[in-house]
Parts: sequence; structure tokens; C-alpha cells
Amino acid sequence: MPNRSYVYDFDHVHELPPRELADLLGGKGANLAEMTSVLQLPVPPGFTISTEACRAYLRHGWPDGLAEEVSAAVRRLELRIGRRFGDPAEPLLLSVRSGARFSMPGMMDTVLDLGLNDRSVQALAHLTDRRFALDSYRRLIGQYARVVLGVPGEAFETLLDDVKRQAGVRTDAALGADALEAVVAASLQTVQEHTGAAFPQDPALQLRGAIEAVFRSWGSPRAVTYRTRERIAADLGTAVNVQVMVFGNRDARSATGVGFTRNPVTGSAEPYGDFLVNAQGEDVVAGIRRPQPLAAMQTAFPAAYDELLSIFERLERHYRELLDTEFTIEQDKLWMLQVRVGKRTGAAALRLAVAMVDDPAIALDQGEALQRVRPEHLEAVLHPTFSASGTVIATGLAASPGAAVGQVCLSADAAVDAAEQGHDVILVRAETSPEDVHGMQVARGVLTVRGGLASHAAVVARGWGIPAVVGAEGIEIRDGGFTATAADGVTVLVPEGTVISIDGNSGEVMLDALATVVGEPPPEFDVVLGWADEVCEGVLEVRANADTGPDATRARAFGARGVGLCRTEHQFLGERLPLLRRAILATTDDDEAVALAELAAVQRADFEALLAAMDGLPVTVRLLDPPLHEFLPSLEDIAGQEASGQPLSDQERALHAATRLWHEQNPMLGTRGVRLGILRPGLYRMQVAALLDAVAARLAAGGRPMAEIMIPLVVGREELALVRGWVQDEIDAATRRHGRDLAAGGAVAIGTMIETPRAALRAAEIAEVADFFSFGTNDLTQMTFGFSRDDVESRIMPTYLAEGLLAHNPFETIDVDGVGELVSLGVARGRAGRADLAIGVCGEHGGDPASIAFFLGAGVDYVSCSPFRVPIARLAAAHAVLARRGRPDTAPADR
Amino acid sequence: MPNRSYVYDFDHVHELPPRELADLLGGKGANLAEMTSVLQLPVPPGFTISTEACRAYLRHGWPDGLAEEVSAAVRRLELRIGRRFGDPAEPLLLSVRSGARFSMPGMMDTVLDLGLNDRSVQALAHLTDRRFALDSYRRLIGQYARVVLGVPGEAFETLLDDVKRQAGVRTDAALGADALEAVVAASLQTVQEHTGAAFPQDPALQLRGAIEAVFRSWGSPRAVTYRTRERIAADLGTAVNVQVMVFGNRDARSATGVGFTRNPVTGSAEPYGDFLVNAQGEDVVAGIRRPQPLAAMQTAFPAAYDELLSIFERLERHYRELLDTEFTIEQDKLWMLQVRVGKRTGAAALRLAVAMVDDPAIALDQGEALQRVRPEHLEAVLHPTFSASGTVIATGLAASPGAAVGQVCLSADAAVDAAEQGHDVILVRAETSPEDVHGMQVARGVLTVRGGLASHAAVVARGWGIPAVVGAEGIEIRDGGFTATAADGVTVLVPEGTVISIDGNSGEVMLDALATVVGEPPPEFDVVLGWADEVCEGVLEVRANADTGPDATRARAFGARGVGLCRTEHQFLGERLPLLRRAILATTDDDEAVALAELAAVQRADFEALLAAMDGLPVTVRLLDPPLHEFLPSLEDIAGQEASGQPLSDQERALHAATRLWHEQNPMLGTRGVRLGILRPGLYRMQVAALLDAVAARLAAGGRPMAEIMIPLVVGREELALVRGWVQDEIDAATRRHGRDLAAGGAVAIGTMIETPRAALRAAEIAEVADFFSFGTNDLTQMTFGFSRDDVESRIMPTYLAEGLLAHNPFETIDVDGVGELVSLGVARGRAGRADLAIGVCGEHGGDPASIAFFLGAGVDYVSCSPFRVPIARLAAAHAVLARRGRPDTAPADR
Repeated sequence: MPNRSYVYDFDHVHELPPRELADLLGGKGANLAEMTSVLQLPVPPGFTISTEACRAYLRHGWPDGLAEEVSAAVRRLELRIGRRFGDPAEPLLLSVRSGARFSMPGMMDTVLDLGLNDRSVQALAHLTDRRFALDSYRRLIGQYARVVLGVPGEAFETLLDDVKRQAGVRTDAALGADALEAVVAASLQTVQEHTGAAFPQDPALQLRGAIEAVFRSWGSPRAVTYRTRERIAADLGTAVNVQVMVFGNRDARSATGVGFTRNPVTGSAEPYGDFLVNAQGEDVVAGIRRPQPLAAMQTAFPAAYDELLSIFERLERHYRELLDTEFTIEQDKLWMLQVRVGKRTGAAALRLAVAMVDDPAIALDQGEALQRVRPEHLEAVLHPTFSASGTVIATGLAASPGAAVGQVCLSADAAVDAAEQGHDVILVRAETSPEDVHGMQVARGVLTVRGGLASHAAVVARGWGIPAVVGAEGIEIRDGGFTATAADGVTVLVPEGTVISIDGNSGEVMLDALATVVGEPPPEFDVVLGWADEVCEGVLEVRANADTGPDATRARAFGARGVGLCRTEHQFLGERLPLLRRAILATTDDDEAVALAELAAVQRADFEALLAAMDGLPVTVRLLDPPLHEFLPSLEDIAGQEASGQPLSDQERALHAATRLWHEQNPMLGTRGVRLGILRPGLYRMQVAALLDAVAARLAAGGRPMAEIMIPLVVGREELALVRGWVQDEIDAATRRHGRDLAAGGAVAIGTMIETPRAALRAAEIAEVADFFSFGTNDLTQMTFGFSRDDVESRIMPTYLAEGLLAHNPFETIDVDGVGELVSLGVARGRAGRADLAIGVCGEHGGDPASIAFFLGAGVDYVSCSPFRVPIARLAAAHAVLARRGRPDTAPADR
Repeated sequence: MPNRSYVYDFDHVHELPPRELADLLGGKGANLAEMTSVLQLPVPPGFTISTEACRAYLRHGWPDGLAEEVSAAVRRLELRIGRRFGDPAEPLLLSVRSGARFSMPGMMDTVLDLGLNDRSVQALAHLTDRRFALDSYRRLIGQYARVVLGVPGEAFETLLDDVKRQAGVRTDAALGADALEAVVAASLQTVQEHTGAAFPQDPALQLRGAIEAVFRSWGSPRAVTYRTRERIAADLGTAVNVQVMVFGNRDARSATGVGFTRNPVTGSAEPYGDFLVNAQGEDVVAGIRRPQPLAAMQTAFPAAYDELLSIFERLERHYRELLDTEFTIEQDKLWMLQVRVGKRTGAAALRLAVAMVDDPAIALDQGEALQRVRPEHLEAVLHPTFSASGTVIATGLAASPGAAVGQVCLSADAAVDAAEQGHDVILVRAETSPEDVHGMQVARGVLTVRGGLASHAAVVARGWGIPAVVGAEGIEIRDGGFTATAADGVTVLVPEGTVISIDGNSGEVMLDALATVVGEPPPEFDVVLGWADEVCEGVLEVRANADTGPDATRARAFGARGVGLCRTEHQFLGERLPLLRRAILATTDDDEAVALAELAAVQRADFEALLAAMDGLPVTVRLLDPPLHEFLPSLEDIAGQEASGQPLSDQERALHAATRLWHEQNPMLGTRGVRLGILRPGLYRMQVAALLDAVAARLAAGGRPMAEIMIPLVVGREELALVRGWVQDEIDAATRRHGRDLAAGGAVAIGTMIETPRAALRAAEIAEVADFFSFGTNDLTQMTFGFSRDDVESRIMPTYLAEGLLAHNPFETIDVDGVGELVSLGVARGRAGRADLAIGVCGEHGGDPASIAFFLGAGVDYVSCSPFRVPIARLAAAHAVLARRGRPDTAPADR
């Protein structure tokens, strides 16, 4: 025997428990070995050809020595069973199944009944039943021809249809033995015709063919696509499991089924699954006959049922997990064919986590329980999802999770009207702007034609927890409706008022009102997130992006430990827009002062509500950031208005002039943030004064306000030092005005966003004048890549991801190699400049699990995300902390 | 005597030659000491109070011991001259002059005649002449009151005017002794009234007051502004020179003058300057009397003239420089009052450099001669300049150097018409686009209202050497002309056709046709640049940005060692625009192929001309970089056209649809560069094939083409690897097509621009698939700062520079601290990825001297700039190399 073997019997004694050897044995093989050798469950004997063999095959072809090892393993099976593979009189039949480290669609699944040929089929008929034997043989020929020999499957379907028509029957099951004999003959003929060679009669050749087919299927296009998308390494290879056949389709005392150790939908502690009498696994998949619920086994196969329940209990205690099994009953004898961790719904995941920690027989470790709850599980219980599918007429970017149904409204005003009449509304716009906000407020969902995941529509929808699909470029808005092109290429006209469904999880737009399931967190939600907070305490906190008191209240209810980003410009929208415009259009200092004073009054009230909602927790207020043109009409609109020849009022004329004045080629890199603050100092001073008045009011009311004033878009120390001076002046003035030291006791801090590459590079000197940093990773990503998110995300990103030019969308998950280096550098230099610098992240990445793990490693103190995302961020933060403590944060083994 | 003294007599023996002690003695003091102690020229005795004393004064007030040192120094002067300071019978008079390391406007200049008072003026009158004595005293009182006591100068002017009116005379010189006595009395009265104290009669007090005034003037607003602009350190301080008075205004045998050792205008070897009989320096400055040319001294003061010429010769041999002197003749005795390096014109600088190297008596070192020629000198001989000044009606950014005069044309077509009629044209546009190029081609100068130094107008004008002023935001274009507001606040209407003058060196727009001086390099131009090339050989080369054969020919004539950037999009302008539009609008692959084939044909011809012009030198061809919308109408225009209600043709409709499709929020960060190349691969393949055909044609013609294919805007390795694969395919195809290996012998290289921050960070892996890098520092600066140059440069930059938020405009001189770190990092990582990587810079910084010095230090192999900038870059490169070889690259000492 060579030093290292390619083939391991299921009861091979390894140095480690087999379940830990999925890298070597594949997931399926590892668990078959675990059941066989550790748990000693009734598993049909077999062996696993390791992933190493596959890797060797993919590099250099069939590995030396593998044939001998397989022969030896088959001989061991023959000795154990007492029948010989390929024996013409009493044949041993084998199955071959793939089994990679992670289960993977697109790979060859199964070839059953290997060992049958023209002679052994007669013996099998003799030993069992002629119809059963012929049916098994014709299945083998068809399956083998398709997956091993590459004969198109339709050839066999046609042939079967012909025979059924001749026999005057409708289902395969109704075909008698004679008809099946004809099918066998025709199938053999078909193989000959398509391949120019006879179906291999030698069982050893059959086996080798099946094994090679499994190896080759690792490189099938579907498997490659899947691995690319799921980021599974391309060089893992798959194992191959060769196993003695058992027959659920042997007779009425036989059956096949799938069983979960608990209910994977609700998480309740009852066995769950179904089974089909006299059937093979593929019949269950085909869905021709309706399976019975598992409980019915109690009467149909009482002994097997009891044994199965007992096995479930042993499996759960052993794996300390919800398990998903496949089993077969052959003439009342139960055989276990597979076990793996069971997929579950969000609610079940939460219940299971708590139940398995509480159950003394399982006593799952709390950290491990926490790791098993995945972000998707929380999403599922927080947002409605569709429980049905419909005709997809367009696909955009999944911008804000959840399922929404409503009638199409093409303007914000129409949306308000329809909502007032009691209709559910989907607001459909080319793109949204602050002028659409009143329509978004009443909409169930938002759909836009243009824009990326950071577009106005996306950001606002996420902030409010409204499902949204953006950048659905296949849609064209026309008078009174829109057109869209379905997958079949047919263009559909969707008039305003039509009910549609949009899926903010998938980005799909569908016709009709699809049924939805409401997201409803179970009581265990808070238990699990409580564990998460314990893990994260003092290491990595989660704050929320919130602009108003109600937002902040909601965020706090979701567990946010403060507001990490209040975008003050959002307070200028809707009915306050005219006030801001008045300040922009002001031609004298007095005019500006009057307009600013009115804005200050409303901002003060907003800030007070925010500070009250987050009493005792920090509230980071970002001074005005966007370029002024965002508050003005578009150049295109005013050009149209002017060309139309209608006379303009003086005010319109002034507005048009201001629009032209503030128009920019690349507003993202233009007069915004601290630059605007420095050009129009009155704005920043007004905002700071309003915030300080709010702090004073909260202090007077006995509250504990913690205001953090954040200056956006700095490129170096000097800008921050200048504005910090102004803020200090305002603090002094407010302290005199209110007769108490407003900055005492940490009530006011002054910091900056790090969102230009230069700010990250110059972090050391910037930190000299900053109490805190907050990384704006959206802008940092835009500038580091030179990607305008609005422009690039829908147009270029799909191609870049499909071509493998980017491993993932850097606006969703932080680009560790590029942007990440700047973040790490910014953190290190910032702390070098000021050791006690507080550092957060307030970009969209603050709610992304993979990014959160990176930020923890970079040394960030907190992340901030939209309120609805806070629970997910809390969970992800805990996962990240646990992973850094040496507990690998892997997805469950069922991937 | 303390260990370290504050006061040094002019003949003090220092450890170093005094001229090297300008840090301690100031420029003036160092040269006075050099003339006195080393050259032993006739200098009125005196002493210098060091800059250390000034620094001590500015920190802690009047320094301990300084008064005693000054007294001792005055006593030494008294002993030497034989008269006592403040002696009522035979007074010694002193002058006090400031003298910092660099000469600096805004600092106190001079107080003369210190030591005069009510008593000593009588003695002086007795010793010399009553009128002279009284005139000297009234000058002292006025000057002292103004600069030391802070009395407004007008008080004395009014007083003098009153006396002149009473006396019935018009000039000061016509006032007799009695009138001057009245002036003295009134002046003393004025001092009393304004300061509440009498004019100090104690000479020691006068002296101390004058010294303190010099110290204080270091902090005068004008001096501070000047230092900030010229980047002179704020803590240098100034020295004070105290010197025995000599009187050029004593009588007709006295005179004062300035003299250059050679002609500073032409550089020819003849003394140059002028003098005024019976006058003081301030009379020369006042310009009331017309001075005589220096040559006239030969007859007026023959002995002094001979002595002066002999001194000039000694000074030149000693300093090995063109010198600028001040002198006084008192009763036929010549006194040297100052010597410094003389300012010179560009032509003179070039001639002098060569002449002083060639002159065996001077034998200037070639490297030092090279360093004395400054970039401004070359600019002056390359571009026309205005020789007169006019009414400035607007100021924009100085975008392309030179002076231009012509009539205003508001459209490209109007410009072409006017030029065809033989008029000189200034094209005035809100901004320019490719559609204006035919108008720019015929214009003498270009003026735009919007846009920065990297705007289309600026880049094209620099490329063609046309003077341009851009971003003149005070201008408003109206029907038939434009309005502008002059400095006096008056708004001027400038109708189309009016002749204006624009100064591309200062950014000023002036009414009328101002006289210009044509730039004309003297023969020494090539000698000096030849020296520069010798210094740079193999260390740092200079290439040019050139898009056409004629551009490249011109660049080569200017000394470019290749083309560092051919912007292929420029080849799509003008009459070829419809071809490109056809490719953009193509709805079928066939349509696109036809349009691309036509473009390929014209590009091939362009490339062939470029390669021919640069035969044997590298030509870097950047594949299409700008976003497609640059070749389409503006959104504003099409909205206007649609709203106007005029029917649209099908073609217009398609054009409008394409405009909307390719419109982007932030095109600078949008679908451009390699991103566009990947979305529309046909474009890049066409360009590469066209270039390869040109290479083949050049090879067939026996030429030595060296094509470098440059992929713009990559963010990582993968994009470059993908496109490199396409390029390789095209090379293979072209090799088959032409029957010879086109890539052999270095005829084709493939590289990339490093212009996104991420590309700089990921340079190591990008270098694995690149033959060369070229840093696009314009875009790198835009992205690192988050500054859209078009938007920020005219709107924000002035404020940022004025407020000291940025030390300089980072688009003109590379931001060493931020962008520079990315460049250094990109170079180091790139070479780590591939040791023999060739690295260049093709951003605008490639022509900026300070940036060139940085690039040399970062390890760049070449810089590329516009053809007209090549000589300056060659010179700057040589300066940088010399500086790195330990030869400090300082401006001449006359700053």
C-alpha cells in the first residue's frame, strides 16, 4: 500500500473524526464515514475516492495506482456483502456519487445500478422481480449515457415516450416488464448510434467511466460559474463516493425519503420530511408522485420509523445541529444514505440557536450558536419576502431588501394621491431627487431606471426600510406608463396604475400582485442579538445612520449604540427646500442671514429630537455635505423650460441663474463638504449654532446629550483646523448665550470624515485637530477606484464581475486590497497622530458582514449603518470578533 | 564682548567670505561686507545688525546687550571718520537700511540723514550749504515720522504743497532755503500734533527708533503676503545696515546712480545704467528728473567713471555674475552703496550663461551657468509678451503662456470667417469642446468663461502653443458680445469684433490692442539646452504630448526624446466626429464594423505620421480615454432643442437617445478609459490594429518605429491582463497579415497609465502584465483630493490658496505629501513587480519644474509635456539632476 492512499472505505480509521475531513473526503463522504465508523449507523458499505485523486486527475489524467486501489476497495465490498461486482448470477450493484467540500450545482450527481449488463439484469430479475430489474437497467443505460457518454437526454425521453404511446400508457410506472424490455433494447441501440460503440458491458469499465465523469464534472460550465459566484476555490476538486446499492424501489416494503431532525421552517423540535413508497431518490426529485409526510411512516414502516427517530436523536446530539438526511428502506430495512447540516429559515435558525444552547443534551456553545445564525437569517425575519414567483419583466439592482406590491405611480404627487385613496403604491421614477421624497414616504416600494446602490433612491429607501430596485435599465418610462422587456424578449407596456411586485432582495420586477410573507422576528431574535452584543462589548460597536428623531428611535430599538451619521442635508428636504433655496439665492448678507435663521430654527428642533432619542449615546452630525445643485432644478429642466418660450418669473430667473452658477461637471468631486462650508461659512456656523442650542436644551431638560460634529470631505489638516476654529467660536458664543459650558463632560466633540484618499494618507496630521475620524467608505471607494457609483455600478459592474475583473462589487463589500489599504493606513496614521482617536465607519460598508470583519481587523471602534441593518451588523460584528478570537467564522457545512 | 555678537562692522573678519553669510547679514549686508573687506572697494563705513537680532527682537522685544553693541559700533565709526554722531558742531550722519536674506517689498527701506536735529542742522549748513542742510533735515523728519512714528505721509505732502503754493513754485527743487526752513518748522509741528511728542532730537534715540522700525516692518502685511506667495520662511527676520551718509545731492560735483556690469536686457558685454547729478537715490525713484545714461558719466565724472568700470570688472570676476550696483558720487569721490546679482531678460540670461562659461577671465562652471538660467527665462524667449499695459476687464487662469491680440469671435465658425478675411482672432467661448477645434486652430488666443487648467480649451491651447485664459468667471456671454467688470467696478460691454488682448502668463484680459514683444530664442538657447541634455542623459528624459505628425515634428525640434502621450481621441475631432458618432450610434455589429473601419483608416495615417516624425524614438499611444458623451451634444442643448417644438430628424432622435444613454453624473469617474474599452471592445481593437498597420508601414519603409500601447484608467491587474490579451491577438493577426513579426526588436510595448489611487496601490501586480507605467498625475490628483479640476480650480482654489489651506495649486505643482506618496509608492511597487519597468509621467506636472524635481527623486525615467514646454522641462530636469548631485538648486541671490 502506498504511503498515501486515494481511496478510503467508509469505516477507515482516520487520525481525526471523519466529519472533520471534508477537505479530503468531500462533505458527503466525510459524513458517510462519520455515520459508519463513529456512529455505526446502518449505511450501505462503500468507499470514498478522495479529492486528492480528483486534483491529480485534473492535472495529469488518471492517477497511477488509482485503478488498483479502486479494484481493491471493490473486492473488500464484495467480501463484506458476499456478492461479486459484475457477477452474472448474483451481481453486486454500486452507485457512484460526487461529493465536493461544498455541495455544488452543475456537478455530476449520481449514477445508480452500476454493474448491471445484459447478463446480470437477468440474474437480478431472477433474484428480485423482472420489471424491477429491467427498470433498473434502463435507468442505468440512460443515466450513464447522459452523464458519462454525453448522449443528449432527449434521445431517451423520446424513446420512452414512443414506448408509452405504443403501450397506451401515460406514466413510466404503468409500463410493464415487456415494454421496459423494449425500452432497454432501444436504449442500447441509441447508445450505439450516438457513440458509435456499444454500452459497456464490463462493470469495471462502467465504474471507471462513472468515476471519471465525476472528476470531469468539476470543470463543467455551471460548476465553474457557481464557484466563481460563491468564491469557492477552483482547485479543490471533488471526492467520489462508491456505495453498495440499496433499493427503495424494490417493492411495496421499500421506500425512499428525506428527513430533517427538526422542523427547518419553524425550528420546532419535531421530525420533518417526507417519503415515497417503492421509489428511488430520483422519483422524489421528479415530483411525479406526491410524497407522504414523515409521520405517516409511523404506520407504514413502524420499525424503520422508530429507528429513524432514534438515529435523528443520536445525530443531533453528535453533530449538535439540525440535520438533513436521506434514507432508503429496502424490504423494511432502514439505510442511511446521507446526512448534512440542514438549511433552515431565518426564524428556525434563531429558535434552533437558542433551543440548542438551552437543551442540556446538546448544550451547544453560545458562541457557536451565534455563528450559526447568518445575516440572511436575520434579513428573512426582518423584511417581507415573496412566497410565490411571477413573470419577471425587468431586473435592476437590489437596493433595499424586502418584497413590495403596489400600483405603479410615475410621480411623487401621483403616489401621494393614490396612497390617500388607500392604494398601495410603487413609485416608479427615472431616478429620484429630494423633490420626490414626499412620494417615497407613502410608497410601499421604489423602482428607478437609473442609479446605483448609492443613488438617492437607494439610500433613502434603505434608511426608511422600504424595498427598492434601482437601475432597472431595461425599463423605459413613457407618457402614462412604462415599457419593459421580459426574459422571453416580449416588450410589455405597463400603464400607470397597474399592480406590480418588486423584490428588493433579488432586484426583480414582476407583473401582478405576488403573495408575500411578512417578516416577523421570533422572541429568540433579541436573545441571539443580546449574545452578539456581549461578544462585541467594548470591541466593535454598531451605530445607525439616522437623520430624524423617529429614525433614531427606531435605530435604538434595533440596538444601535448611537447615531454614526446624521446627514443634515436630509433635514432640508420637502417643505424646507424653499428655505434652503432662499439662502442659496440670497444676494445680500442680510437676506442670507434671515434664511439661515429660519433654517437654524428647524434644524435645532431636529437635533433636539435626535439627541433625545439617543440620550446618553453619541450622535454624529455631519455638516452639510452635498453640492448645492442638488437643491436646485436640473440644467436639462431649465433649458427645456427656457426653450419652451413661456415667460419666466423673476424668482424662476434667479433660480435658473443659480442652477447655472452651481452646475458642475463632476459634482461628486466638486464644491461640496468642507469646500462648500468654507465658501459659504454662514451655513456651517448656522448648523453648529443650531446643534449647540439643541445640546443646551437637552442639558436644561436633564438629558445627557453627546453631540459629535463631523466635517466632511477634508483633504488635509488645514481645512479641519480652520473649521474647528469656527466651531470653537460657536461653542464659546453658545456657552455665553446659555450661561453654561456646553462642551463640558464630552457633550461636544469635533471630528472629520476620512473619505478622500488624501485624507487617509495625511491622517496623522489631520488627527492632531480631530477628536474622531469616521471613514466614509462610499466616497473613498469612488475616489480610490475612480468609479462614480451612480454611473459605473449599473453599467460597468455587471461586466466587470462577469469577466472576473473584480472579485466582488467594491461598493457592497470593501475592497480590502485597495480601499482597505487606505483605511488601515488611515487608522494607523490617525492613531499615530492622536493615540486616543475614536474611529468609525459610516459608509454603506458599515452594514456589510465581510466588510465589518475587515474593519475590526483594521482597528475601527464602531460601524454605522441604516437602522434596519443594525441587527445584521450587530450579528456580523459578533461573528467577526469570534473569528478573531480563533473561532473560524465559516458558513455551515451545507454550502 | 558676548560669545556671539549681534553687530558686525562691514570689515569684520568672518570665518567664511561675507557673501556666503546672507542668512546672518542679509543680502545687502553680506555684499557690503564683501565689497569692503574682500574687494576693498570704496564703501562708506558701516555695520550690520544681524538677522539674529531681528529674530530675538520679534520673539522677546529689544535684545539685551544690543544697545551697547550698537553704541560701540557707532563709536568705532566716529573714530574712523573723525566726527561724532550727534555732534552739534561737526555731526556724523548715518543711514539705516533693511536687508533681509531675500529682497522683499513691503519692508521698511531706508531712513537717511539720521543724526540731524535742530542744532546739528545749523552745523551742517555751516559746513556745506544752508539749503542742502535744511532739505536734508526736512527729508529726515518726514521719512522718520512716516516709517518710524507711523504718521501718514499725506500730512507732509500737504504741508510741502502749501509751502510751494505760498512760494509760487512748482517743484521741491525750486524751493529756497527760507522756504525749506518753513517746511522744517511745519514738519516738526506736524510730528508733535500727530504723535503728541516732539521729533526726537537725541540722535541715539533716532537711531534706535529706525532700527526698531526695520525690525517691525518684517511683519508688515505687504511683507507677510509677499513671503506667503513666494514661500519665504516667516521666521528668517531681516538684518539692519547702519552706514555713514554720503551725499549725492551735495552739489553739482555730486551724483547718484545705478549700474549693471553688463546689459541685462540683451546680455551684451557693455556697462549699463543711469545716473542723476546732484540727487539722492529717492530722487531717482521719484522719477521727477530724467537720469542720464551711464556713458554720459565719462564726460561728467571721468575719474569716477573709470573707477566704476574698473570696479565692474573686479565685481564680475569676483562674483562671476551680472551685477546690479548702486553708487553715489560726493564731490567727485565714488562710493559704492550696494551690489547684488542683476535681474535679466530671458535672452540676456541665455547669452550671459554662455558668455561667462566662454570668458577665460570668468570661466564659469557649466553646471552653475545652467542653474542660473531659470524656466521663466526660457518662457520669455519662447512666447510673445506684452510690452505695454492696458485696462484689465477680467482675470482668469493663465492656461497657456503668451500674449495674444485679436478681435472677439464668439463661435468657431465666426473665428474661421474672420481669420479668412485676414483678421487676428480671439475665440471667446463659455467653454470649448471638440466641436470648437476648427475655431481654435485659426485663433491667436482663446478665452473661456468656465473651466480650469485642465479644461479642453487649456489642454488644446497648450498643445498648440496658443495663448489662453480660461475660467474668467467675471465674463458673461450675451447675444453679440460679452460683458465684463473692470477692477473699478464698471461693467463693460464688449461687442463681437472688438479687439482685445489676453495675457496667457497672467490670466488678464485687457481692452484694446496692446503692443507685444515677439519671443525669439537667441542662438545660445540651443547651447544651454544642449548642456541640460548632457546632464540628464540616461537619468531623466523629456518627451512630449503630441497627437499628430506635425505636433511630433515640432516636439522633436524642441528636443523631445519621444512622444509620452498621444491622445488618440484628438484624432476623432473635427471632420472625423461624424465617423465616431456613427460607431457610437451603431445598432448592429455590421454598422459598427463599417464605421470603425473608416476610423481605422484615418487613425492608421495619423499613427504613421507620428511614428515617422519620431523615428527611432518611442511613441506612447493611449487608447481612447474620454467618456463617449464628449463626442455627443450636451443634455442641456438637446433638452432645449426638444422643448423648442421643432421637429427632429431620425438621426437627431438617435443622437439624442445616445446622449441620454451615455450621459453620466460624474463622467470623470464614469465609463471611460479601459472601462469603455471593455464595454465596446471593437474600439480598442480597431485602434490597436490601425497602430500595428502603421508600424508595419514604417518598417516596410525602412524606418524604426517604437510604438508603446498605453491602456488608460486601470484599477488593477485584471483589466490590463484582459486588454493585453486582445492586443496580443491583434499583434498576432497583424504579424500574419503583414508577414513579419511586428513586435520584434522592441517595435511594440504594452503598458498602462497609473492614474487611479488604486492602480498606484496595486502597482506590483499590475506591473506583472505591463512593459511600462505612465503616471497620469492630473487624474491621480483629481481622485486623491476628490477635486474635479474643472469645477474646483476656478471656484475653490483661489480661496484655498488665499486661506493657506493649500500651499500651492496641486494641479500646477505635484502635491508631494499626498499624490506624491502614491507616485513614490507606485514606482516602488511597480519595480518590485517588474524590475525593468519603464516609468514615465504624462500629466501636466511633467512640465512643471518643482514637480520634475520630485519625479526624479521618486525614480521616474521620463516626463512628458506639451511640445512648447519641452525646453523648460529639459532645463528643469537638468536643474533637478544637478541638485541631486549636491549642487543646491537655488534661485539667484537677487530674490
